[in-house]
Amino acid sequence: MNEYFLRKADENLPEIKRREIRPDVSLTVLDKGDSLTVDLGNHYVGYLSFKMWYVDEYIDAPVTLRIRFFETEAEIDHDYSSYGGWLCESWIQEDTVKIDFPGIYRLSRRYAARYVRLEVIHTPKRLSLSDFTFEAETSADESKLIPYKNDDSELEAIDRVAVNTLKNCMQRVFEDGPKRDRRLWIGDLRLEALANYYTFRDTALVKRCLYLFAAADRNSLGFLPAYVYENPIYYTGSWHIVDYSMMYVNTLCDYFNHIGDRETFDELYPLAKSLMESANACLDEDGILVVPEEDMFIDWCAGLKKVSAHFGVYLYTLDNLAATLQNIGSDDASIFRERLEKGRAAAQRVLFNKERGAFINERDGGQYSVHASAWCVLGGVIEGEEAKRLMLDVIGSEESVKPFTPYMHHYTVEALFKVGLIDEAVAYIRRIWGGMVSLGADTFFEAYVPGDPSFSPYDDKKVNSMCHAWSCTPTYFLRKYGI
Amino acid sequence: MNEYFLRKADENLPEIKRREIRPDVSLTVLDKGDSLTVDLGNHYVGYLSFKMWYVDEYIDAPVTLRIRFFETEAEIDHDYSSYGGWLCESWIQEDTVKIDFPGIYRLSRRYAARYVRLEVIHTPKRLSLSDFTFEAETSADESKLIPYKNDDSELEAIDRVAVNTLKNCMQRVFEDGPKRDRRLWIGDLRLEALANYYTFRDTALVKRCLYLFAAADRNSLGFLPAYVYENPIYYTGSWHIVDYSMMYVNTLCDYFNHIGDRETFDELYPLAKSLMESANACLDEDGILVVPEEDMFIDWCAGLKKVSAHFGVYLYTLDNLAATLQNIGSDDASIFRERLEKGRAAAQRVLFNKERGAFINERDGGQYSVHASAWCVLGGVIEGEEAKRLMLDVIGSEESVKPFTPYMHHYTVEALFKVGLIDEAVAYIRRIWGGMVSLGADTFFEAYVPGDPSFSPYDDKKVNSMCHAWSCTPTYFLRKYGI
Repeated sequence: MNEYFLRKADENLPEIKRREIRPDVSLTVLDKGDSLTVDLGNHYVGYLSFKMWYVDEYIDAPVTLRIRFFETEAEIDHDYSSYGGWLCESWIQEDTVKIDFPGIYRLSRRYAARYVRLEVIHTPKRLSLSDFTFEAETSADESKLIPYKNDDSELEAIDRVAVNTLKNCMQRVFEDGPKRDRRLWIGDLRLEALANYYTFRDTALVKRCLYLFAAADRNSLGFLPAYVYENPIYYTGSWHIVDYSMMYVNTLCDYFNHIGDRETFDELYPLAKSLMESANACLDEDGILVVPEEDMFIDWCAGLKKVSAHFGVYLYTLDNLAATLQNIGSDDASIFRERLEKGRAAAQRVLFNKERGAFINERDGGQYSVHASAWCVLGGVIEGEEAKRLMLDVIGSEESVKPFTPYMHHYTVEALFKVGLIDEAVAYIRRIWGGMVSLGADTFFEAYVPGDPSFSPYDDKKVNSMCHAWSCTPTYFLRKYGI
Repeated sequence: MNEYFLRKADENLPEIKRREIRPDVSLTVLDKGDSLTVDLGNHYVGYLSFKMWYVDEYIDAPVTLRIRFFETEAEIDHDYSSYGGWLCESWIQEDTVKIDFPGIYRLSRRYAARYVRLEVIHTPKRLSLSDFTFEAETSADESKLIPYKNDDSELEAIDRVAVNTLKNCMQRVFEDGPKRDRRLWIGDLRLEALANYYTFRDTALVKRCLYLFAAADRNSLGFLPAYVYENPIYYTGSWHIVDYSMMYVNTLCDYFNHIGDRETFDELYPLAKSLMESANACLDEDGILVVPEEDMFIDWCAGLKKVSAHFGVYLYTLDNLAATLQNIGSDDASIFRERLEKGRAAAQRVLFNKERGAFINERDGGQYSVHASAWCVLGGVIEGEEAKRLMLDVIGSEESVKPFTPYMHHYTVEALFKVGLIDEAVAYIRRIWGGMVSLGADTFFEAYVPGDPSFSPYDDKKVNSMCHAWSCTPTYFLRKYGI
């Protein structure tokens, strides 16, 4: 752990802004077995309090309430009697509390929610609940939000929900999800930072997160941990995702390109360079990046073959880094430019199937996926009409493997924009993010598969995060491309 | 509610003394399903905290712990899967908490316990528990405790456990039990105050409690509520127990007789007088006090007939009040002395069965009970050898109804002392309170029936209070009578 970088991170710790949300609930009288659902009116992250009082006479025993928090209305009706997921069940936002005295009761834990359900498990006498207050927290400064208007109400709604998603993930760090996992992941950070440049422009928070990863010990191959904890102690994850290490390089380049903070770039560039050297050291005799299967993320997508997509990430990163270095007149630009050209040639040779006009190859067991297509297009392996044709085909194909998460949806849209398929990009945004809006989303979900509302990467939707950082980027596209 | 009396009560709000108990538990590593029992070494009332930390790597989800608190070792093995009692189940000292971060975790609720059991319900990874601290609270000033020595180790132990019981019930008020009900009852107050005069001598706390009842609205017959709440708001119970109203008069007389605080006595005497006028108004044509069955307490003893015992309380109170008034030269002494003589005569005529030499009568359906015997002896209906003979017989009889609670055990012992049966009184103390000590008690129980360890007045022992104010009086007897 690098103490200097950690100190730099702490110098950029944001102030948490608090706002009291007072949902419209009149005083409600409840007895044992009764329940009450409170609608906060929007998705917020924070602390619930309410007033419990007696009705007929003083309540002469502690009152036991079960309190569940839901990010979406659909979650209210899930079956909470059993759990079949492989993530820890404690992530379900449910607490059973005993209230000893009448008065204001404040729950000590932070929740992410639009809806709250309170059930009276034990009470000796009737009680009333009132004065519900949700103290919402975010480090985003809403007064600095750049406005966005669009006559198209769907696109305006998509932007609004995207901004809300970003806002609720902006806390002490760019969290991936305020319900779960509540930590800083590189993949989420990169997308949040991009959305942030077009909305809240909180550049100090990006800087803080860049330093938090810079402070981390790297693994034996030189890659970064995929996530860090910073509260109450600094601790890094034991999972070193190679595409996320490269996303760190992109995040640094994006930061400099948007903010122009040369001092930070110069201080963190040696790390970026070293990460790309580590990737370079993993190229095989064909010049293709080879890392263990479990060290590539790309998407939560069962059965996905990742070699081509992962190599696309490598090329995309080299491109971003070389361009940034060229901008500042660094001699290193040529090193990465040269690797990029060699890499593209290797991809054309090994990964691109000229006959099929697609990235269908042995390395990926002949699999045809949006992932490989979008990433190799973003990496510049193919261009122009060839790239356009592929993107249109792979998105429309019934055979192709499709993204499961908005993280991969984002890069698919980015590839569509890159090849000039603007209408298709906007249609894709409408289909994915507009699809979530039409389900009543106040924030965008961690995973979204059109037509499969019960999909969970964790085998139980009750632990899905329904406000997830990596889903916030429509605001970036709509604003960047002036749509 | 009388604001002036409430203000007087608040002027005497005691300071809570805090002491950190650090049980001897080394760092313990636990995984899902594991549990740990912590022995605090004695019974305390307060707040638990401990350190939860990761073992192999950072714990990447909230940890769910179920934490149960036990006043006695026997309670650890109760069946917690079901509950059959008629008091609110929330009284069981059990909480399920979710811990989001490693570090010190402090439970927000107050518990009364010697033992704590922590079970890991959900955790994604191994965790450690250490640094257990119990912040014990009491308003008793232990530095002021009058020492008690006895070569008889059983009696010394009985005194020690009695003092511990009193100490743990002394909080903002004299609570009846720090596990349950945690409020100020007149019957408990009277006995706690008596024990207090011989131990901690916290006279301000007695004064505070006298004013708390004085502030209460009385019922249509003029009697006091049996209990009051004072935190966070002042609220009085809706149960007006007539023998408890008379116990208030005794508590005031005792206070003056021990402390000599004439100002307080004079301020509260009008209430005491009024309570005795209310009782007087309930005498029937035979001169016997008649109130609804449910307004008499005497003891938690199924099937007990209470008229004789209740009338004994009335006579006992008149005696105490008349003597106190006589002490200060009040003209009112004669009023109550006169009523006492008339009452004793009525009891001899209506309640005392000369043939049987016992209080076996039609009013109580021919029932023969320790309760009627002890109270009528304390009320002076019979005296000398006649009283001695009755007390010995009723205690030894296989047919007589016996006390279930130490509250009634107290008055039985008091009757034995009154008639000069000192050895029998001490033997009785050994049998009841020594019996609890031999079960490993650190504090004396709410209910104790020798030979019936599972007895509960509430049909489920899990809600019994095992540190109960009304059980603390052996210290009073042992010290008062120099035993």
